[in-house]
Amino acid sequence: MTTLTFIGAGMMASALAVPAYDNGHEIRIVGTHLDDEIVKRAKEDGYHLNMKRQLPDGFKWYYYDELEEGLYGADAVICGVSSFGVDWFLEEIYPKLDPKLPVLSVTKGMINKEDGSLLSYPEYWEEELAKKGIKRDICAVGGPCTSYELADKHHSLVGFCGTNIDDLKFFRDTFANDYYHVSISKDVRAVELSVALKNAYALAVSLAVGIAETEEGKEGVNHYNPQAALFAQSTREMGDLLELVNGDKNQLELGVGDLYVTIFGGRTRRIGTLLGRGYSYEKAMEELAGVTLESVVIAKRMGEAITVLADKDEVKKDKFPLLMHIYNMIANGAKLNIPWNKFNQEDLDN
Amino acid sequence: MTTLTFIGAGMMASALAVPAYDNGHEIRIVGTHLDDEIVKRAKEDGYHLNMKRQLPDGFKWYYYDELEEGLYGADAVICGVSSFGVDWFLEEIYPKLDPKLPVLSVTKGMINKEDGSLLSYPEYWEEELAKKGIKRDICAVGGPCTSYELADKHHSLVGFCGTNIDDLKFFRDTFANDYYHVSISKDVRAVELSVALKNAYALAVSLAVGIAETEEGKEGVNHYNPQAALFAQSTREMGDLLELVNGDKNQLELGVGDLYVTIFGGRTRRIGTLLGRGYSYEKAMEELAGVTLESVVIAKRMGEAITVLADKDEVKKDKFPLLMHIYNMIANGAKLNIPWNKFNQEDLDN
Repeated sequence: MTTLTFIGAGMMASALAVPAYDNGHEIRIVGTHLDDEIVKRAKEDGYHLNMKRQLPDGFKWYYYDELEEGLYGADAVICGVSSFGVDWFLEEIYPKLDPKLPVLSVTKGMINKEDGSLLSYPEYWEEELAKKGIKRDICAVGGPCTSYELADKHHSLVGFCGTNIDDLKFFRDTFANDYYHVSISKDVRAVELSVALKNAYALAVSLAVGIAETEEGKEGVNHYNPQAALFAQSTREMGDLLELVNGDKNQLELGVGDLYVTIFGGRTRRIGTLLGRGYSYEKAMEELAGVTLESVVIAKRMGEAITVLADKDEVKKDKFPLLMHIYNMIANGAKLNIPWNKFNQEDLDN
Repeated sequence: MTTLTFIGAGMMASALAVPAYDNGHEIRIVGTHLDDEIVKRAKEDGYHLNMKRQLPDGFKWYYYDELEEGLYGADAVICGVSSFGVDWFLEEIYPKLDPKLPVLSVTKGMINKEDGSLLSYPEYWEEELAKKGIKRDICAVGGPCTSYELADKHHSLVGFCGTNIDDLKFFRDTFANDYYHVSISKDVRAVELSVALKNAYALAVSLAVGIAETEEGKEGVNHYNPQAALFAQSTREMGDLLELVNGDKNQLELGVGDLYVTIFGGRTRRIGTLLGRGYSYEKAMEELAGVTLESVVIAKRMGEAITVLADKDEVKKDKFPLLMHIYNMIANGAKLNIPWNKFNQEDLDN
């Protein structure tokens, strides 16, 4: 039995604790300063307020000011913050951890640097920590897995990635079981990029929902040919973006699986549908009460990166017509005008 | 203006005539001996009985015994039969056509030979015609496109393939317009395999629907993590199967887009759902009133091909655990038991 300390009591971290608990490990979940309500209730009866699920009695819950206690004697740490907590985790948590203590992160997203290069969060953290003289390896989780269904023990297929193979195998062996299935890869950037991109492209495919609604004059209708066309084009651009970062194209599969389910619902489908109906980005965001969406963040960052790289002639914008269109709608107020004809290709070489 | 003669008055051929008609070409549709009812009604008022759509008045309809008239002066022929008409078209039609007359086929599927190799229908036809001393090139259509939505002029993205580049460009220029988007590729086997495989894998992903229904005790519930896991694994295996036939992996995109929409409904989802509920293949086919499904045909053919190749040590069955599982359910009466743990991979090389 190992002792696992989860920092962040959000839905994904709390759900991820379930398979590890079922595998016989000690589970400690430490809330951030934003999680006090969740921890308060969970300490009482194990009920998770946001996930609306009863979690195992054996979970041990800690407030953020009990962090030290929660970390005492831990064999590994799981970073459970969202992308909005990336710098907080960098400043507040990593410096307090023994650099040898394995860390697995559930945070999804990518960062674009001014030179147009793209970094996953593990890479970003490792770089920033190195500047402070801290050498640490960070593993991460990617793949299609909603927290609700993981907590309900439905079959899920995910990818763990990291450059430290011992840590990677340790985490796989700790979490994987008969319902939580784990592939492992050394290619952190490919796994993380693939999974981040699915948010942007789920928005893109959802445009077809809004367009169909406008054409038919009612909500909830589907035109499958346009959705499939955007799905195919999304798969193509995701693969080309993996190539752009020299990523392992095998990691595309988890991103495509994740894209498939992300389109079914939630706020990303909602904003894509609104933009598809012809709403401006501003008006769509008003309907969503201004909640910042991961899909919007990643579309902006990817669009910025590609713009910089295209200016340097390192990439052609025309290779990513769908992504650049949603970027232009979000960042530059462009009107809906899907560049269908740019999706036509000629593969006549072989 | 060119004159296009469609042979087969089924839904797909009739729908495909719509963009060509909008592009100003002469459309002649010749029914097979099975299409008399369709042609009779269409001759009266242009209504297509199976598609339940009014088609343009300008279409010219012919009974099969008017074939000669329908072909007179045609610039190109479109083969519109289903996979069950492949040999009929080979014996009855091809010998009557000038070998120089371009042919575009909408027939989807693959054939497995005894040695385990896989052939697309254009390749099969070309091989068989060569034995009769007829040298002919055949182009084909693949990609996610339902006939209903094409007839309704919704945006569709498809791939035309063929080894004769002049014919290929001719067909693209004849059909492509502002709602029918056409990529072209020389890699016939890759395009056709990718599109055929989606039927088998749509059945595979639908297993998760039946499993969820059993677990929840009611119909119409979805568990998205297992569906996404099967979608990711399907994408992986489809890519590996393209590699197995030395196919262009770029063609995977159209197959994945097609997979995405095929899961939404129809008989393939239905049989996958029934098998997912634990029905035997025999019992599931009873519910479907014995209708032969393309998804079942292709799963059997692929399973047979892989079995032969594995016996010759040319491929490992373990590379295709999902396909082999549905093959074993269909061909060998195996019970539902998704090999989840075989989906876990280790990519630790780079």
